[in-house]
Amino acid sequence: LALGLWRRQAALAAAREDEEEKELRQRFMAPPVSGLRELRRRRGELRSRMELLIMETQAEVCRALAALDPGASFSVDSWERKEGGGGISCVLQDGEVFEKAGVNVSVVSGLLSEEAARQMRSRGKCLKAKDGKLPFCAMGVSSVIHPKNPHVPTMHFNYRYFEIEEADGTKQWWFGGGTDLTPTYLNEEDAVHFHKTLKEACDKHDLKLYPKYKKWCDDYFYIKHRGERRGIGGIFFDDMDSPSKEEVFQFVKSCAKAVVPCYIPIVKKHCRDSFTPEEKLWQQLRRGRYVEFNLVYDRGTKFGLLTPGSRIESILMSLPLTARWEYMHTPPDSSKEAEILEVLRNPKDWVH
Amino acid sequence: LALGLWRRQAALAAAREDEEEKELRQRFMAPPVSGLRELRRRRGELRSRMELLIMETQAEVCRALAALDPGASFSVDSWERKEGGGGISCVLQDGEVFEKAGVNVSVVSGLLSEEAARQMRSRGKCLKAKDGKLPFCAMGVSSVIHPKNPHVPTMHFNYRYFEIEEADGTKQWWFGGGTDLTPTYLNEEDAVHFHKTLKEACDKHDLKLYPKYKKWCDDYFYIKHRGERRGIGGIFFDDMDSPSKEEVFQFVKSCAKAVVPCYIPIVKKHCRDSFTPEEKLWQQLRRGRYVEFNLVYDRGTKFGLLTPGSRIESILMSLPLTARWEYMHTPPDSSKEAEILEVLRNPKDWVH
Repeated sequence: LALGLWRRQAALAAAREDEEEKELRQRFMAPPVSGLRELRRRRGELRSRMELLIMETQAEVCRALAALDPGASFSVDSWERKEGGGGISCVLQDGEVFEKAGVNVSVVSGLLSEEAARQMRSRGKCLKAKDGKLPFCAMGVSSVIHPKNPHVPTMHFNYRYFEIEEADGTKQWWFGGGTDLTPTYLNEEDAVHFHKTLKEACDKHDLKLYPKYKKWCDDYFYIKHRGERRGIGGIFFDDMDSPSKEEVFQFVKSCAKAVVPCYIPIVKKHCRDSFTPEEKLWQQLRRGRYVEFNLVYDRGTKFGLLTPGSRIESILMSLPLTARWEYMHTPPDSSKEAEILEVLRNPKDWVH
Repeated sequence: LALGLWRRQAALAAAREDEEEKELRQRFMAPPVSGLRELRRRRGELRSRMELLIMETQAEVCRALAALDPGASFSVDSWERKEGGGGISCVLQDGEVFEKAGVNVSVVSGLLSEEAARQMRSRGKCLKAKDGKLPFCAMGVSSVIHPKNPHVPTMHFNYRYFEIEEADGTKQWWFGGGTDLTPTYLNEEDAVHFHKTLKEACDKHDLKLYPKYKKWCDDYFYIKHRGERRGIGGIFFDDMDSPSKEEVFQFVKSCAKAVVPCYIPIVKKHCRDSFTPEEKLWQQLRRGRYVEFNLVYDRGTKFGLLTPGSRIESILMSLPLTARWEYMHTPPDSSKEAEILEVLRNPKDWVH
């Protein structure tokens, strides 16, 4: 009898697991790189929980965007990296609302040189390798959304996790990420909503995080040769490895969950706004600056372009569909164009 | 009587000089950075002869382009660099024939750190500085022409001269430069004409130069992350300091004089060609690759963006008016688009 009960419970548990697996399969954009069964088997490990989180974030964001652009749909490409791992790239191109929206997941692993490993950490710690090579695992979700309407801002986010194993078996780990907004025209209400939503996500964990990461964001997205930031910021952090793996993971989870509430209301509010050809032109010029930042300064892009076996189309998915460069373009004083430039030159506090 | 004759001759000579000066003033796009009088006073020095050559090249090219685009005109900006020197930027934007055509002269001087001086030379020679600083002088003419019609290729050229004074007073000098073509579609006849004209300019000086600098060009304009060259090449060289200053100058002069005959006939031939919206789109995608090369790899652009006091608008004048990035764009096999890609992946010899 006891055995029969145990068998029945085991069968129920298995059925429940199958059900959960089926549900996840339906929810994700594609099967996860590490395999659903494997992820569920190792569900206690942080690596697996992070991979599930980035898959979930990808699906959540894609669904929210697709709902606003019913005529368009995401193309989904699963790709493998011959050196280890792979990814899933979801791209919606030339829709009604979005010019180009990409949400990319990658989960890669392999061996790094000491030099490459040092470059991966912004603080440049020295890592001890066995035979000069360090086993590593890197995973993340990253996304850039370029809308058509110049009154809807571009949004970028990225959340990532790294693990490196040193010669003595110790594992170094850290998280990085951020969410930031690049409007063509300034809308203070939107800026406040965006920053406030991020602040709330941060404040649940530590009140010091938002101010610190808001400043880091303003400093990071700086187009030095222009003396301008790429946008009106948000949060940015790297090398985050305290207070504990679990606590940092929970913080990253809060940030990832804040992406949709940060941004989608702004898109809904403005995607039917009327605009002039002049406003579209200013958007195209700002797109040019976006390209300048990404190709000249962005560490992720540069690292990607230099990494053998990386998938170029997924890295450069962040570039807009179209961009423009005019020689000596200067908006007139007190124009709406000058207003946003002022904020890009002198970042503001949006939340008090 | 003898004194009177001498006076008359001196007056005649002065009048002739005034006449020459007037003529030069009319011929150039703007007064030279070093001043016309100063240049003519030091006309024996190579620096002055090079500055006159780059001014002349700028004017020649601008005039040849303007003649093909009668509705448009060059805006001419003379600018000063507070650290020493300055330049003249001539830009024609949004014409009938040219989308964006820039011809820039710069003549700058000042003090370089040993590190910066090393970076300036592709061979990275070590230079001995007095108190860690090296007096230098750098001048050049550089140009990028982006036509509207996708059947007219983009053309770039740059000729430059450097001087650095070491602690013991020895002067290091070298020349660099090149001319290269970036077609949207392959036209073999044009490719042959372009390369043949360059080869003739080189061959007058040394038969080894064209093959060597043709290969250097293919190697330099390589977009590594794409596995493609930016265009179908031309010539490129750097650090040229033999056989003698005079001989290298004469070679550079031949190259500079070849710009107009290289390119203008190709523009004339195709600027009235009809084209489809699909051909325009392919041009825009190729413009995107042009931006990728210039912002990610080009040494001149990178050096410029990092140099304090450099004029950003003149450096980024090389970027096209408009560019496009489509996710996963792949032209069909055996299409005209695939034909040019093949040549960009595997450079050809155009002249036998």
